[in-house]
Amino acid sequence: MNRPTASEDDRRYVLALGTPDRTGIVARISTFLAEVGGSIVEAAYHADADSGWFFTRQAVRASSIGLGLDELRERFATVAADLGPETEWTLHDTGVRKRIVLLVSKEGHCLHDLLGRAAGGELPADIAAVIGNHPDLEEVTRQHGIDFHYVSFPKDPAERGPAFEQVRKLVDVHDPHAVVLARFMQVLPPDLCDHWAGRAINIHHSFLPSFVGARPYHQAFARGVKLIGATCHYVTAELDAGPIIEQDVIRVDHADEVRDMVRQGRDIEKLVLARGLRWHLEDRVLVHGRKTVVFS
Amino acid sequence: MNRPTASEDDRRYVLALGTPDRTGIVARISTFLAEVGGSIVEAAYHADADSGWFFTRQAVRASSIGLGLDELRERFATVAADLGPETEWTLHDTGVRKRIVLLVSKEGHCLHDLLGRAAGGELPADIAAVIGNHPDLEEVTRQHGIDFHYVSFPKDPAERGPAFEQVRKLVDVHDPHAVVLARFMQVLPPDLCDHWAGRAINIHHSFLPSFVGARPYHQAFARGVKLIGATCHYVTAELDAGPIIEQDVIRVDHADEVRDMVRQGRDIEKLVLARGLRWHLEDRVLVHGRKTVVFS
Amino acid sequence: MNRPTASEDDRRYVLALGTPDRTGIVARISTFLAEVGGSIVEAAYHADADSGWFFTRQAVRASSIGLGLDELRERFATVAADLGPETEWTLHDTGVRKRIVLLVSKEGHCLHDLLGRAAGGELPADIAAVIGNHPDLEEVTRQHGIDFHYVSFPKDPAERGPAFEQVRKLVDVHDPHAVVLARFMQVLPPDLCDHWAGRAINIHHSFLPSFVGARPYHQAFARGVKLIGATCHYVTAELDAGPIIEQDVIRVDHADEVRDMVRQGRDIEKLVLARGLRWHLEDRVLVHGRKTVVFS
Amino acid sequence: MNRPTASEDDRRYVLALGTPDRTGIVARISTFLAEVGGSIVEAAYHADADSGWFFTRQAVRASSIGLGLDELRERFATVAADLGPETEWTLHDTGVRKRIVLLVSKEGHCLHDLLGRAAGGELPADIAAVIGNHPDLEEVTRQHGIDFHYVSFPKDPAERGPAFEQVRKLVDVHDPHAVVLARFMQVLPPDLCDHWAGRAINIHHSFLPSFVGARPYHQAFARGVKLIGATCHYVTAELDAGPIIEQDVIRVDHADEVRDMVRQGRDIEKLVLARGLRWHLEDRVLVHGRKTVVFS
Repeated sequence: MNRPTASEDDRRYVLALGTPDRTGIVARISTFLAEVGGSIVEAAYHADADSGWFFTRQAVRASSIGLGLDELRERFATVAADLGPETEWTLHDTGVRKRIVLLVSKEGHCLHDLLGRAAGGELPADIAAVIGNHPDLEEVTRQHGIDFHYVSFPKDPAERGPAFEQVRKLVDVHDPHAVVLARFMQVLPPDLCDHWAGRAINIHHSFLPSFVGARPYHQAFARGVKLIGATCHYVTAELDAGPIIEQDVIRVDHADEVRDMVRQGRDIEKLVLARGLRWHLEDRVLVHGRKTVVFS
Repeated sequence: MNRPTASEDDRRYVLALGTPDRTGIVARISTFLAEVGGSIVEAAYHADADSGWFFTRQAVRASSIGLGLDELRERFATVAADLGPETEWTLHDTGVRKRIVLLVSKEGHCLHDLLGRAAGGELPADIAAVIGNHPDLEEVTRQHGIDFHYVSFPKDPAERGPAFEQVRKLVDVHDPHAVVLARFMQVLPPDLCDHWAGRAINIHHSFLPSFVGARPYHQAFARGVKLIGATCHYVTAELDAGPIIEQDVIRVDHADEVRDMVRQGRDIEKLVLARGLRWHLEDRVLVHGRKTVVFS
Repeated sequence: MNRPTASEDDRRYVLALGTPDRTGIVARISTFLAEVGGSIVEAAYHADADSGWFFTRQAVRASSIGLGLDELRERFATVAADLGPETEWTLHDTGVRKRIVLLVSKEGHCLHDLLGRAAGGELPADIAAVIGNHPDLEEVTRQHGIDFHYVSFPKDPAERGPAFEQVRKLVDVHDPHAVVLARFMQVLPPDLCDHWAGRAINIHHSFLPSFVGARPYHQAFARGVKLIGATCHYVTAELDAGPIIEQDVIRVDHADEVRDMVRQGRDIEKLVLARGLRWHLEDRVLVHGRKTVVFS
Repeated sequence: MNRPTASEDDRRYVLALGTPDRTGIVARISTFLAEVGGSIVEAAYHADADSGWFFTRQAVRASSIGLGLDELRERFATVAADLGPETEWTLHDTGVRKRIVLLVSKEGHCLHDLLGRAAGGELPADIAAVIGNHPDLEEVTRQHGIDFHYVSFPKDPAERGPAFEQVRKLVDVHDPHAVVLARFMQVLPPDLCDHWAGRAINIHHSFLPSFVGARPYHQAFARGVKLIGATCHYVTAELDAGPIIEQDVIRVDHADEVRDMVRQGRDIEKLVLARGLRWHLEDRVLVHGRKTVVFS
């Protein structure tokens, strides 16, 4: 008998599901998984009292199920149908590598961090391309063997439509699972927010909802806060108001000038983006309304 | 039709279970809960790859089930039997108030903290009694309307047997769900560790396994660590080596002398003990071997 | 020869000073302290590039100086005069016990915490009185041997003037070093803010500037933040906008309802208030404009 | 008159000094600095009650002093002599770029992190060379335009002498201010510890003194701790026992296997090493016996 290889043994089918709550959902899903022989490796549930919805994420050892992904999806569709028409679900195979595209500007710390994680085999996705509205980060990107596209943005915001259109095309050719604004510093137009809804992820350099918009470290300095933070969130049409995936903070004091906050803040931005992106790519983030359920 | 009162609506049956892992456990349990009409409010699962065991905690709205606790236990026993003879489980009704007994010495910060939480309705248990090997904390205990028993301990450790025997009797009369060593500063004899196994909870003033034993802040100061911590753990016969429930740390620096560490450490001790005790009382802590699963 | 007792040895003269920055300030002050034989135990400096001001706090072993506090103040006044007319400074003797008055409402966790710290000898001040706009916390206050004054506040905010006048009198009779709004839940009128400027300290249950005003945990829940916090700040006429002394946060997730945030937030409120108050009482907080310098 | 350029304005002379404590040290030093016109930008002091030593670090705007570094050192030597023969001090010019050499093995996360910081202009030193006992990290190092030297280490520890001798020569040619063991995984022989005393900096992947030696994440997993950490320390002949510069921790839980701890631990290792190294390079770390004073 063939023992699965280590990496084959690590392959998972990951189900993420949200549906209006009622009795018996867990029984319905777990009975189905037991019927197909699924060995559950991770399972998380959340019954949201506020919205009346139920959310679950289940990771099943792929080798324990004698079905391909398509067949499993087909069979699970009947379970989902039983749970009602509002049910939202995805079913992914971790053996199929995901793709991400990064949008950058001049600040390279988040890019460097993600490139380093990719090189170390830590990122659960391939970086398909990097797109910059400045050419500064082209060299480091290419050194890692990744395509870099420079798109020039006009000074006048009113004239940036064609530039965004070009970005959209460069991104969409990869059909990525995540479009990461890694300190991109450009506000996406509403149609792009819609187009990439649930896939466009931003890192904002403040602990939202404090210090929305431009120059948050300057705002933090002026207010005299004792902690600064960063927020990883889905991009929506309303600036810095999308569903929050992850946040963290770091202590500062009176001796820290704006440039010190900028420097220390970078470490938090890197961490928060890396964590949020990882959870997104592992189907650990379920969005409902303005909020997220994160099965971290 | 009677609507359950708010507090009746908050009443839960809480199942905590561990068993050797195999396919179908979740289906078996959730199907049972669905059959008795159980509305699951919280559910957590953990399949432990290292030990090959499976753990779960489920909180069900009591009002959704048309059975009393005893009948529910009886019915669930057949499910547990199906899961095999090694299965360990408890089923509690949050409507039945738990009891705890505190063992203290001279240092009052943990006692004050727990009394304050009890007064604020935050503690999910009643403090049945406080026992001290010094009389210092008698007054504050009595002011809160709680019995205090002073048990004198001889200087010579070899002669403390009768004192511990007296403590055992004073504790056992309450048949408590937790015996909390709230900075008790006495090492329990092995037979008491056995007798209260899984119920005796200690707060140690270091980040274990660093600085086992006496005067951990002095040890931390001598080593020059940059963080100090506290550890809440179950008491076992091996000193400071029982299963860890919760830990946390706080930053110190070169300017902090031992007395500063003692002062700052108190805040961490209070927090860590309060969190660990709460989780224990809410059946969120499952012990397996030297380690815990904490569904916090 | 008499050796000073331990507590006499711990007595300090504490100088806190702010002045427009220029070369030689440290030399001027430290030369003065050396001349009077002062053994410096703690010294901290901050040159604020943004405001162009210089701040320092120095703690000198009182027994090393052959002068009483009044004489020392008189002599230092000539140094301060040399530093220019804008110079602000205080000089305190830690051997003279400070006094604080607490304002409370119904929520008792901050009061319990401060009473526990006072009982444990940890608070560097005496609690002279507690004033409540509800009688709920009278009993626990009196159990600790502290006077409690109940002041009834009318429903209509427009009619609360006399109540605030009564509070002012009850406070001012103690001439306290700090008036602590320990979850007082009433907005001080501007004249009281002025009257207690630099002494009135509030604990706000959010990470300001997020969630100003009422029901911050509800606001945090609605926004879906991943950390909640608390802020200790001086009270000014603009609501929740005074100089921040200390802040901290705690992690929450999607499973935490508002009441869970309220419960977990209490622990942060207690810690942040205790730290901020301690620093204030130890003359570690220097206010300049809307911001603080904290020599913690 | 020429205004100094922005970067000239940022140039500092940094004095770091330790000496047995006595009255008048601050006055002596600050009077000297005032006499040479020094504008103090940062100043920190610590009187260590335990050892009876006094430590200070002062950063002075270089442009405010009409002396070159050599002349300033010569003049300050007379001040230091007055403070007694045990006095230890350094005086650096931040306008003179420091050099570091990195020792690596196969794990690249700390190297990637430091290369990214260097590329972003964040590191206060140049990476002069990277030396690896495996060739794995050669390519990424060279992509950043930095020399990489591969030194083969024999399996048998007893035969590694020549390899260490080769490493010593490759390092010493750069006369570096820091020799960073960025997950080097080789224990330095005692003579190299002595040779690089105060300059060899290690990152250990545990919260020392817990889990000294090999495979600390496995040890942490086996013990069931609830936080894992990393420690940046000076290398001494006793394994993992040198003076600690910085430590930090991250929360883990029962669901984290060893490989999860390894992954999450990397983020803490990177941060702790980057912070510790930065402080070392900015002369913020003063070693005394087994401990450090860190003016961060």
